[in-house]
Amino acid sequence: MSSILRGNKLNVTVFGQSHSKCIGAVIDGLPAGLEIDSDAVRAFMSRRAPGQSFFSTLRREADAPDVLSGLVDGKTCGAPLAIKIDNTNTKSEDYEDLKLLPRPSHSDYAAYVKYDGNNDIAGGGQFSGRLTAPLCYAGAVCMQLLEQKGITVKSHIYSIKDVNDEPFDLNNLYDDEIMPDPLFPVLSRFKGEQMKTVISTAMDNADSVGGVVECAILGMPAGIGEPMFDGIENIIAKNIFAIPAIKGIEFGSGFSGTLKYGSENNDAFCVNDGKIQTVTNNHGGILGGITSGMPVVFRCAVKPTASIGISQQTVNLQTKKEEELTVKGRHDPCIVPRAIPAIEAVAAITVLDLLL
Amino acid sequence: MSSILRGNKLNVTVFGQSHSKCIGAVIDGLPAGLEIDSDAVRAFMSRRAPGQSFFSTLRREADAPDVLSGLVDGKTCGAPLAIKIDNTNTKSEDYEDLKLLPRPSHSDYAAYVKYDGNNDIAGGGQFSGRLTAPLCYAGAVCMQLLEQKGITVKSHIYSIKDVNDEPFDLNNLYDDEIMPDPLFPVLSRFKGEQMKTVISTAMDNADSVGGVVECAILGMPAGIGEPMFDGIENIIAKNIFAIPAIKGIEFGSGFSGTLKYGSENNDAFCVNDGKIQTVTNNHGGILGGITSGMPVVFRCAVKPTASIGISQQTVNLQTKKEEELTVKGRHDPCIVPRAIPAIEAVAAITVLDLLL
Amino acid sequence: MSSILRGNKLNVTVFGQSHSKCIGAVIDGLPAGLEIDSDAVRAFMSRRAPGQSFFSTLRREADAPDVLSGLVDGKTCGAPLAIKIDNTNTKSEDYEDLKLLPRPSHSDYAAYVKYDGNNDIAGGGQFSGRLTAPLCYAGAVCMQLLEQKGITVKSHIYSIKDVNDEPFDLNNLYDDEIMPDPLFPVLSRFKGEQMKTVISTAMDNADSVGGVVECAILGMPAGIGEPMFDGIENIIAKNIFAIPAIKGIEFGSGFSGTLKYGSENNDAFCVNDGKIQTVTNNHGGILGGITSGMPVVFRCAVKPTASIGISQQTVNLQTKKEEELTVKGRHDPCIVPRAIPAIEAVAAITVLDLLL
Amino acid sequence: MSSILRGNKLNVTVFGQSHSKCIGAVIDGLPAGLEIDSDAVRAFMSRRAPGQSFFSTLRREADAPDVLSGLVDGKTCGAPLAIKIDNTNTKSEDYEDLKLLPRPSHSDYAAYVKYDGNNDIAGGGQFSGRLTAPLCYAGAVCMQLLEQKGITVKSHIYSIKDVNDEPFDLNNLYDDEIMPDPLFPVLSRFKGEQMKTVISTAMDNADSVGGVVECAILGMPAGIGEPMFDGIENIIAKNIFAIPAIKGIEFGSGFSGTLKYGSENNDAFCVNDGKIQTVTNNHGGILGGITSGMPVVFRCAVKPTASIGISQQTVNLQTKKEEELTVKGRHDPCIVPRAIPAIEAVAAITVLDLLL
Repeated sequence: MSSILRGNKLNVTVFGQSHSKCIGAVIDGLPAGLEIDSDAVRAFMSRRAPGQSFFSTLRREADAPDVLSGLVDGKTCGAPLAIKIDNTNTKSEDYEDLKLLPRPSHSDYAAYVKYDGNNDIAGGGQFSGRLTAPLCYAGAVCMQLLEQKGITVKSHIYSIKDVNDEPFDLNNLYDDEIMPDPLFPVLSRFKGEQMKTVISTAMDNADSVGGVVECAILGMPAGIGEPMFDGIENIIAKNIFAIPAIKGIEFGSGFSGTLKYGSENNDAFCVNDGKIQTVTNNHGGILGGITSGMPVVFRCAVKPTASIGISQQTVNLQTKKEEELTVKGRHDPCIVPRAIPAIEAVAAITVLDLLL
Repeated sequence: MSSILRGNKLNVTVFGQSHSKCIGAVIDGLPAGLEIDSDAVRAFMSRRAPGQSFFSTLRREADAPDVLSGLVDGKTCGAPLAIKIDNTNTKSEDYEDLKLLPRPSHSDYAAYVKYDGNNDIAGGGQFSGRLTAPLCYAGAVCMQLLEQKGITVKSHIYSIKDVNDEPFDLNNLYDDEIMPDPLFPVLSRFKGEQMKTVISTAMDNADSVGGVVECAILGMPAGIGEPMFDGIENIIAKNIFAIPAIKGIEFGSGFSGTLKYGSENNDAFCVNDGKIQTVTNNHGGILGGITSGMPVVFRCAVKPTASIGISQQTVNLQTKKEEELTVKGRHDPCIVPRAIPAIEAVAAITVLDLLL
Repeated sequence: MSSILRGNKLNVTVFGQSHSKCIGAVIDGLPAGLEIDSDAVRAFMSRRAPGQSFFSTLRREADAPDVLSGLVDGKTCGAPLAIKIDNTNTKSEDYEDLKLLPRPSHSDYAAYVKYDGNNDIAGGGQFSGRLTAPLCYAGAVCMQLLEQKGITVKSHIYSIKDVNDEPFDLNNLYDDEIMPDPLFPVLSRFKGEQMKTVISTAMDNADSVGGVVECAILGMPAGIGEPMFDGIENIIAKNIFAIPAIKGIEFGSGFSGTLKYGSENNDAFCVNDGKIQTVTNNHGGILGGITSGMPVVFRCAVKPTASIGISQQTVNLQTKKEEELTVKGRHDPCIVPRAIPAIEAVAAITVLDLLL
Repeated sequence: MSSILRGNKLNVTVFGQSHSKCIGAVIDGLPAGLEIDSDAVRAFMSRRAPGQSFFSTLRREADAPDVLSGLVDGKTCGAPLAIKIDNTNTKSEDYEDLKLLPRPSHSDYAAYVKYDGNNDIAGGGQFSGRLTAPLCYAGAVCMQLLEQKGITVKSHIYSIKDVNDEPFDLNNLYDDEIMPDPLFPVLSRFKGEQMKTVISTAMDNADSVGGVVECAILGMPAGIGEPMFDGIENIIAKNIFAIPAIKGIEFGSGFSGTLKYGSENNDAFCVNDGKIQTVTNNHGGILGGITSGMPVVFRCAVKPTASIGISQQTVNLQTKKEEELTVKGRHDPCIVPRAIPAIEAVAAITVLDLLL
């Protein structure tokens, strides 16, 4: 079931490879009668699209979603909403020689073993970050429904390599004026510039960097989610790891919470405007797998881009000899900014499903 | 589906509350003909059982699993293996006054909203860590099958608060002689003593601490797992968050990998004894959601025990007024040691399912 | 996942073998706060229990459900409702010689192959009709919730061998006065007597008979169910085949509808008391997988009891020689009456899940 | 999850409406390295395609599948195999007036309620039989894999209205020479001619007829399937009801088995060529949900086409007044022949999944 994000009501089937005719998604379970705001979808998807900034890959693709089914007069009709996005700008020859030389920290070798050498290596095949484009389409649609319910999903770059954004402020983080650049959302412009310098340096060295994305879901009512195996943490984590390069996830104070005493990490309850809330939010809006009514907050570790221009050691799958490999082709020195909409999309799909 | 750990073949349904007649599990999908080594199960479960050390809760329960079905002459017969563990040592009166005063950072408030006040508050109800006992039973059984396949699951305490165990050494970590105490597994005895001091101090202050558990699955063949939504990371993460107090998970270099350059974090391929391996294991044995043949390595953040003896602010659910609450009853100052077998159990169940 | 009836919200895990320590069920997903009427549960379960009439097996068991978890003060608390029913009256020696002689039309041979000879043969193991007892418990609980929603599930014996009950009358079928005997529900007492004669004759000849059960779900609102793979028909059918001896299911006019012209089988719409209904109900309350607001009606074929006292040819699994076998032990000459509550239970669970 | 046929390994997501841009399927879980025989796929799909005989709808569409992803050099690569089939010959104006006048025994009314009037009425929307085209594509691919395992799926028209094909002969049914017409497969040419006359008469009267399809899966090994909720019968039944117009399913002797004594319906075991088999196959190759090694045999009731040219009573959804409706547009007087490949496709997908 690798290609299906399964919810209770909502299921998103993703298909395509980096260099297949197209990629796409089938979204099953949306309420009927939803009028999709195509401009909002396009705006959201453009945050993920390549070629937007000097950092991102040279490959420029419109990423224009083509609706195949599911709409009547621009409204959902109860049938699955299916879209495709054409792959127009593919240069498969770049990848020909990679068939026998797996790229370090890419899926190539694992896929080679799993699929007995039949895996599509061109552009990373089905493992390509490009597959997050249809996911972003689905997420953008879900976000429109969430907004109708008063729920918003917002993220910022928490860190790039060792440069951290300003400390997290629950009260101001999500003000659009504070993070004016949707392609590089940070609270502190100064830190943002430092981050860009770190990325530029990596790019100049044909190297790459990673970082951490912090995402918050605001407006979630309390009491959503199931204990044990189907808690909010379980499901968000499961779905977030579908995004390539994610290697960790934490909720609330997460790993840093383990450095505190219980008396510091516990979140006292208080009454605020007649509503029961917590003074702090170290629990990240989730207690026992269930929402507490506080913002759901999580952070994801995005590893440094595996594709680098520096020579690396690999093993020839035919000769079983070690060889040097320099990955050619186009690649981002840092995919954190483009991972953000994918993370938001997964969060939106996951949370909407729980509310349907 | 909150109570079911669902795999492709293997499903573990967990039932019970801390103070119900019993707790238990139904394990569906085990191969028939497996002779269960009850001593090994008991030994494994005893690592989780309460009252083993001066740190852990005073409540002492045998945690003796009672097999209800699924065995014929001590061997699995294809029918679900069902067990129960009686709750013999319950003191529900300790919890009576908590019905209206949710304990900070416990599930009480979220469960109150979700279940409209009908949730079982005694001993934490279904949210109690006690529910990991049947999970440990299931894990112990799965581990026996994994061992037949040459796969072992091993963990150590990576950190307690700010005390870290010795650096991770892939070659020696899993030698039983190195970690002689199964109830407090650390590589460095010296660091282990420091950790115990930290826990003791917290206990003396009626406070609590958390930590990080590192778990490795050794012997996994390459090519296991599915891309995107059903990768090893997705599934392990989903299941691990079923364990109370887990607030984060990372694979391989995880969050610390974001501090490195791609050239540092990438794992070069090499040939070792004729086998293709990687020189380092920053990818934690998983590439594109699929095993690489290297050990699967992950770390979990275990938050400080929410139950502390220090007075905390909460809100009376009836009066909606803020009140002070001092949690009475028995609680561990640190549940990290007892979380370890639960983590191993979940890892074993998850991985076995993928191999069946 | 063989032992789990999976719904969207509601999951029923069934465990046990005919002769294991007990059998039981774990019901996950019930709303919290439901006060269970134990008398109603007992009354419902007694319709399935053995030893009620001269037809049914001599084995008499109380079938008393023992609640293990999920209730607080008699109300559901959100935690899985787990029950067990002890197996007190087992005579395993009756089955010893069946290990090598599979009984015709029983699961013995198929299970032998599947489980490599490790299957539990005593009393039919996990394939025993006895496993419908915990299912009936779950169904009885669900029925209480359905009744609160104005939905009832009612059945009658449509036929025993070639004796048919009176024609189906949507307006009167479900009046309790018309079918006074819950253990042998028929519309026509006269036909009921004929059916009993057929059963008695079979019993006298150490033979068996089967029949058809007709079940109706009254009060279902229109618009429930999903098109294609998750329609009401799909899900009811999937779950109904969990009951041993069911070999067919049809909805509305079903197979007999194929004998009509479209103009005869189509159900004209009409307005009745201001509500849109159909004049006839050949569609069985389901159009395109979705309820139409008319009663959901289906019929199940229950095969003649496979256990008969007449000598039959089988094959010795060790010697691979043909042998004669006379099945000893207790068995009903007709299980149709006892299948009815199981069918109603499955219908209730399935339908409730769709409405939660 | 309405649009996803879910298996353990294999998942088929179907999308599209009768008059959307296209319809299609995403097949996830096929083994990598399978070379797809496009000619065989086309031949199989042509049995379902419209306009093949004088009986079937005038709409002629090539039903040419366009592969979007999942293949590299004509072989499956492990990524989901996605296809689309363009809807080229749509005349939506035919359906405009149906928006307020639900057609008797169509999904129109149920869908109207479910989707709050937003459902796509044109050509039946997502409920159209046209959606079986992508299913047939998936089935054709699966059949190629089954054939490699020595398994074949074959069907014949068991009956049209009250005309029955020759009695079922396990030894000869599946000989292609005996059923030379793949578009109208019958054992008896004489009966086939009678069936065609029945269909012609219905057509002349602007009426319709239904029938029964018998399908057999040959070559299934014993021991496949799970007891209770995931038996072969459960899963085949669940998936078969995805095909529009199916209103019943029975396995082996099914409903007619209820007319027999147990001694007649039981299938004695015998040894045949050293293999354990049964003398008769009233159990339809399935015992306790598990294959016995005998052919899996089932029959499906296909209701008379709901679309007829005769005036029928319906209710105007706006005025809530009864009105007369004459369904215009193109429709088959009998869809049994075109349902056959869809039934075989579902059988093939379902069975292959169990064998992967």
